[in-house]
Amino acid sequence: MATFKDYTYTHFLVTSPTPFVVHVQINRPQKLNAFSEPVWREFEAVFNRLSSDPDVRAVVLSGAGDRAFSAGLDVQDASTRIPGMGQGDPSRHATVMRRYILEFQRAVSSAEKCEKPVICVMHGISIGIAINLSCSADVRICARDTRFAVKEVDIGLAADIGALSRLPKLVGSTSWVKDVCLTARDFFADEALAVGFVSQVHETKDAAINAGLRLAGFIASKSPVAVQGTKELLNHARDHPVEENLRYTSVWNSAMLQSSDFKAALTSGLTKKKPTFEKL
Amino acid sequence: MATFKDYTYTHFLVTSPTPFVVHVQINRPQKLNAFSEPVWREFEAVFNRLSSDPDVRAVVLSGAGDRAFSAGLDVQDASTRIPGMGQGDPSRHATVMRRYILEFQRAVSSAEKCEKPVICVMHGISIGIAINLSCSADVRICARDTRFAVKEVDIGLAADIGALSRLPKLVGSTSWVKDVCLTARDFFADEALAVGFVSQVHETKDAAINAGLRLAGFIASKSPVAVQGTKELLNHARDHPVEENLRYTSVWNSAMLQSSDFKAALTSGLTKKKPTFEKL
Amino acid sequence: MATFKDYTYTHFLVTSPTPFVVHVQINRPQKLNAFSEPVWREFEAVFNRLSSDPDVRAVVLSGAGDRAFSAGLDVQDASTRIPGMGQGDPSRHATVMRRYILEFQRAVSSAEKCEKPVICVMHGISIGIAINLSCSADVRICARDTRFAVKEVDIGLAADIGALSRLPKLVGSTSWVKDVCLTARDFFADEALAVGFVSQVHETKDAAINAGLRLAGFIASKSPVAVQGTKELLNHARDHPVEENLRYTSVWNSAMLQSSDFKAALTSGLTKKKPTFEKL
Amino acid sequence: MATFKDYTYTHFLVTSPTPFVVHVQINRPQKLNAFSEPVWREFEAVFNRLSSDPDVRAVVLSGAGDRAFSAGLDVQDASTRIPGMGQGDPSRHATVMRRYILEFQRAVSSAEKCEKPVICVMHGISIGIAINLSCSADVRICARDTRFAVKEVDIGLAADIGALSRLPKLVGSTSWVKDVCLTARDFFADEALAVGFVSQVHETKDAAINAGLRLAGFIASKSPVAVQGTKELLNHARDHPVEENLRYTSVWNSAMLQSSDFKAALTSGLTKKKPTFEKL
Amino acid sequence: MATFKDYTYTHFLVTSPTPFVVHVQINRPQKLNAFSEPVWREFEAVFNRLSSDPDVRAVVLSGAGDRAFSAGLDVQDASTRIPGMGQGDPSRHATVMRRYILEFQRAVSSAEKCEKPVICVMHGISIGIAINLSCSADVRICARDTRFAVKEVDIGLAADIGALSRLPKLVGSTSWVKDVCLTARDFFADEALAVGFVSQVHETKDAAINAGLRLAGFIASKSPVAVQGTKELLNHARDHPVEENLRYTSVWNSAMLQSSDFKAALTSGLTKKKPTFEKL
Amino acid sequence: MATFKDYTYTHFLVTSPTPFVVHVQINRPQKLNAFSEPVWREFEAVFNRLSSDPDVRAVVLSGAGDRAFSAGLDVQDASTRIPGMGQGDPSRHATVMRRYILEFQRAVSSAEKCEKPVICVMHGISIGIAINLSCSADVRICARDTRFAVKEVDIGLAADIGALSRLPKLVGSTSWVKDVCLTARDFFADEALAVGFVSQVHETKDAAINAGLRLAGFIASKSPVAVQGTKELLNHARDHPVEENLRYTSVWNSAMLQSSDFKAALTSGLTKKKPTFEKL
Repeated sequence: MATFKDYTYTHFLVTSPTPFVVHVQINRPQKLNAFSEPVWREFEAVFNRLSSDPDVRAVVLSGAGDRAFSAGLDVQDASTRIPGMGQGDPSRHATVMRRYILEFQRAVSSAEKCEKPVICVMHGISIGIAINLSCSADVRICARDTRFAVKEVDIGLAADIGALSRLPKLVGSTSWVKDVCLTARDFFADEALAVGFVSQVHETKDAAINAGLRLAGFIASKSPVAVQGTKELLNHARDHPVEENLRYTSVWNSAMLQSSDFKAALTSGLTKKKPTFEKL
Repeated sequence: MATFKDYTYTHFLVTSPTPFVVHVQINRPQKLNAFSEPVWREFEAVFNRLSSDPDVRAVVLSGAGDRAFSAGLDVQDASTRIPGMGQGDPSRHATVMRRYILEFQRAVSSAEKCEKPVICVMHGISIGIAINLSCSADVRICARDTRFAVKEVDIGLAADIGALSRLPKLVGSTSWVKDVCLTARDFFADEALAVGFVSQVHETKDAAINAGLRLAGFIASKSPVAVQGTKELLNHARDHPVEENLRYTSVWNSAMLQSSDFKAALTSGLTKKKPTFEKL
Repeated sequence: MATFKDYTYTHFLVTSPTPFVVHVQINRPQKLNAFSEPVWREFEAVFNRLSSDPDVRAVVLSGAGDRAFSAGLDVQDASTRIPGMGQGDPSRHATVMRRYILEFQRAVSSAEKCEKPVICVMHGISIGIAINLSCSADVRICARDTRFAVKEVDIGLAADIGALSRLPKLVGSTSWVKDVCLTARDFFADEALAVGFVSQVHETKDAAINAGLRLAGFIASKSPVAVQGTKELLNHARDHPVEENLRYTSVWNSAMLQSSDFKAALTSGLTKKKPTFEKL
Repeated sequence: MATFKDYTYTHFLVTSPTPFVVHVQINRPQKLNAFSEPVWREFEAVFNRLSSDPDVRAVVLSGAGDRAFSAGLDVQDASTRIPGMGQGDPSRHATVMRRYILEFQRAVSSAEKCEKPVICVMHGISIGIAINLSCSADVRICARDTRFAVKEVDIGLAADIGALSRLPKLVGSTSWVKDVCLTARDFFADEALAVGFVSQVHETKDAAINAGLRLAGFIASKSPVAVQGTKELLNHARDHPVEENLRYTSVWNSAMLQSSDFKAALTSGLTKKKPTFEKL
Repeated sequence: MATFKDYTYTHFLVTSPTPFVVHVQINRPQKLNAFSEPVWREFEAVFNRLSSDPDVRAVVLSGAGDRAFSAGLDVQDASTRIPGMGQGDPSRHATVMRRYILEFQRAVSSAEKCEKPVICVMHGISIGIAINLSCSADVRICARDTRFAVKEVDIGLAADIGALSRLPKLVGSTSWVKDVCLTARDFFADEALAVGFVSQVHETKDAAINAGLRLAGFIASKSPVAVQGTKELLNHARDHPVEENLRYTSVWNSAMLQSSDFKAALTSGLTKKKPTFEKL
Repeated sequence: MATFKDYTYTHFLVTSPTPFVVHVQINRPQKLNAFSEPVWREFEAVFNRLSSDPDVRAVVLSGAGDRAFSAGLDVQDASTRIPGMGQGDPSRHATVMRRYILEFQRAVSSAEKCEKPVICVMHGISIGIAINLSCSADVRICARDTRFAVKEVDIGLAADIGALSRLPKLVGSTSWVKDVCLTARDFFADEALAVGFVSQVHETKDAAINAGLRLAGFIASKSPVAVQGTKELLNHARDHPVEENLRYTSVWNSAMLQSSDFKAALTSGLTKKKPTFEKL
């Protein structure tokens, strides 16, 4: 069975610094890691592979270079990709736009749909698509120098690849969410931590990356059956009433409680030895 | 086409301090801005007009006078409006009550349904209906002296015009929401900021109003297509699973991305000039 | 009509320190208040009775002894209860597991379904089932020494009796929720307060219990029609869109506004005397 | 309190042939009862008044003249009302269109939202808006000569005022629904009966009207508390899972079972006399 | 483990005419099988036991005696059970009523929640509760002489134990459903078959019972894993969007496809021998 | 831009008998058109391409050869594809199964997600997957000789690729749906027509195919904007409450009403000439 290592990537640097941990870096530092269409199409391919790769248990997503996690849409590329505005039948143009948006959304959602936890580590410029991508991750960590903005209203549109769908469910204060989405204003690490958008702030990019990798390594040491089930059930919980989630959970665990990991974890608890888990 | 300026109001002071910004003041300071039935019926009329008025891009809602944003229900008025309790057939009485509640709810919801962002600036006494109204706004700001309370249990009823429906989705801590709703206790500016109910606290009412007007002015300078779409999509997101919202968003933007604002905003980005947007 | 006092309990200490307030203590301090199957079955019986007992208006739930609110599942008991893993037909085994999980979930949910508010006061070890139980309560308070952990991944499974269903809706930061659920790491009182999981921290267990009882007493002094309606409508709001909750609320209050408590509360407001409310 | 008789109508003939029964006739026979904007705006006003008029317990809706229940949209009127196609910014045009559709939908939905049962009696040409209106009614009856068509695709659009929303939930066969909606083909009384779109076919328009009035009279002789509750709960059932509807029903009937009608109906069962019910 | 045979029943005759088939007869023929409170409480107990009894694979529900499947509520009993109408506080009375309705609903729903398919065979008088019960079954069969009526509006109330919740989802024509629910009129076997309420009509009660038992026996010869999964997934489908049901199904079958029945069924297909399945 | 003609297919015969109409034939007659994994993977590829191909406006799906539309799963293939049952960790096996089911479901759903209407014409053996596929189509037509069966329980499993999810929403009688799904019994053309599963029966396969192609041609002559919108809105309606669908519809048509087809269709109505529509 092919693993993520059997592929080569154009716009991403994909490495495995420790067993079962994969580090995905957006690798266009000269473009401030902006996203052209080929970039987001490859992003989807990367996360689809990681999702079912048994050598992967946790993923860290970050941006190469000192200046930016990502400066958002590659506007130069976008202007050549999106078919001619203002010409022809608006309803046909709308159909083309809708299909394009749906594909772009699906690419961004691939990090959320990835069965393994994804930790997003941000630094420097982190605007536009950067916010959308990070909302698809499970845990957000940032460096002190991060400059965030839900930038879309500044280019005349409502964000349509996930930020408006997910942000209200990721942080507690709707008043804050509406403020930053309606104004496109910058906000910084401390504010992001205070509202709960990120759960850790580190002094430098390196420190943030290391914290992300440590967290990923810690998660990778746990039972993959337990970890992947936890991600799936938490994502389901976000979108369903409590009763619905309880019912879904009971069916999910009716199979998953038959895992050998349960026995391994219990035994290791008694023997104080680190358990070993089969791949998943 | 008529604009909000073509109407006169009995209980509200409606002005436009800067272009595209409207300031709505509850104008019964001698009654601490309490709401009688005519007041909430006029409230609905005001916001319905602002919703589609092309001269409006952002709204600030506040209370006239020094003492109160609003002291809630005008109990004197209420006692004369609500048909005789404890008499006649309880099922018929229930029907009358239900219709009345539905109309009252619709009035309070008109700020949420208003297509333009609404910034609620509170000060002094802000209890009962005040909380319900402010939960219908998009952004909440308050003065240091604000005294909040979800007051309804103190008059023997569960709040039924929106506070219980919206508050759990506006702030992060359910433990806090239940505490303040079950006890009707007072809380103040710092606590409101810490839990995310408001996103700004200012030292005086004047400072808070100014901040609200500044924020409204800033929003009014952005593309109205982008701003109104952002409000709509965020409100939709609150009530729908992520997948549902993404689908709705793709249809919404299939028309909205054909906006001239997109071009204007991109151009202004290059030329560093302030863009001008058509009315909406 | 029988009240909660007409029953005797094996694993719980159930007292009424002040009128209309009931204090339920998990009473297995020698086992760190761990939950065997008989314990959670009795837990359900206790809360079902309190739910409709007219002598009860608010409940405090805590754990007996100094060391733990609860150390979670009684693993020794569990190993004898759950039918033989890894033997026989996995689909039939799954059916047995699913039925078991559903019953266990129902027991934990009984605190949420209890019509009277439940205040959970935690101290010391509060892991595994402790988290699940506390998420079913309305308000969470803790002592400074509390050690929390969503412990399930450490025993090889995804939590399935409520923590993953409810926690994302109880606190604002999803990044934090995923962190603690995916790692099973400990967290402490200050962190629990900062993210909004608890709404009060007290220096000692005794202080926390006293605060819980005071809060319960305060709630018990209010109209039971108003209080129980508020709990029901807030729980409904969590799981429904705003429009749905408004509609449900209008029907609920069509009966509840005919309460004598409304009149009693209004009168007491005028006379400045403490109102008396009929039992419910 | 004003009743429906206190108003005069331009486009409708509103009469009360028997006590508590109201007959609403679309009264533009010379235009084949086509709907211009003023017609649907008045339609909404009529049904909103009937909804809470205590002199009304059941409504029959039909079309005046021999040739048509309704020939649908008044295209001549429509071409003057809808703002200039193909000009200006498509996103702004979309906003105007969306607001217009929402108002039109609300008008058509007013028959469904009317608290009293509405029986739609069709004859002759019944196409376009005719289908949309009839889907908002509770019971559909037709004359042998009725010619139905979900006509919208023939004028280049997907039906947007209710037919596509409601038809799939009114008849059993989706294969049939898609056939008639995608082709805009005619269908006739027998087919409409066989698929369950109508529940009665009569040989002439007069016979159909009489059957409708008889049915309305029969319903009007029942307890209005029971009848209006039944309409509300069935409409709620269409749009909710069974568990949700049961919960809503339990709250609804907690007030409605306190009705004097219950006692009157039981007594009349014993005494074999026709019960009298209070107005509602 | 106890089976349904280890219990004795007061109001029901519970037999097993063929292996794995259970026949439950409402056994109050002298009362036309009317339901008093003790009857519906025992009904729930019966179906809860059958649900997890491994000796049961299919259930037939019918009424003893020649005259009636069930004449509905035992009105005499009801008048003594339901606490005094029209006295005391309507809100407190509403609370008592709501709790009572919820328990009654749960009893009626127990046939739906029973994990084994339930075939309801009706004859003679089948009104009120009879309709509600039969809507909880999976398949409905009737004798030629059956007289059906959704009778509740005739006693002054909207049906609240399931008929209005389930009937609109069991038959295709909403026009028909509203007709019979709003008028309480009788309908008979042919009409019930034509609208799809029942799927078989037989000439006599005996023939109908035999057909029901034959169908139950046929179902009982199939894989219980497949049969019980099919019931669960169809019930889930009724209340969920297609995408939701597909997701739930994929989790359900991830365990159930590991069944030995799959292998047994495939093998028996090749060998043309009747497969034997383990109990479930 | 590539069209469906630029591809070659292994298991399907894809032709265009008339402009804008595509005929897709399952082309394994020697295997009774059974589905191996490569077949359903290619099925998905075919429909994904048709979905956005501007040369396609309506699709007919049928099976090559005289004997079968499709005999369902290619059991021989399946036994080699699905990883070893009963070995290893049941939870890991469940994960593999779940991923496999999800991919299989997605393939079957591709006909439903295809933006162009799909007419399924069945004949001969039409069991198992055949039912699942046909439920994904918009309109179902069959030949007199068709033998249908929801066959899955006969091979020891609950259908998991769509039949149980969609069938209850495609036909009116739940009693019938449960009967055929729980028993796996055969049913034939007349029964399929009576319950509404198919909407046309023809005497021979050829007659059925011709009817399907005629219907497709008729649909292809209509405005593609109107037709594709109608399919989308009807599919949305199935899974959403009426209010939700109305809201979605208003946004959809805000763009689609700007279509040139609207003008073309209106003009052609006046001039009695056949309108020409741009590709979509």
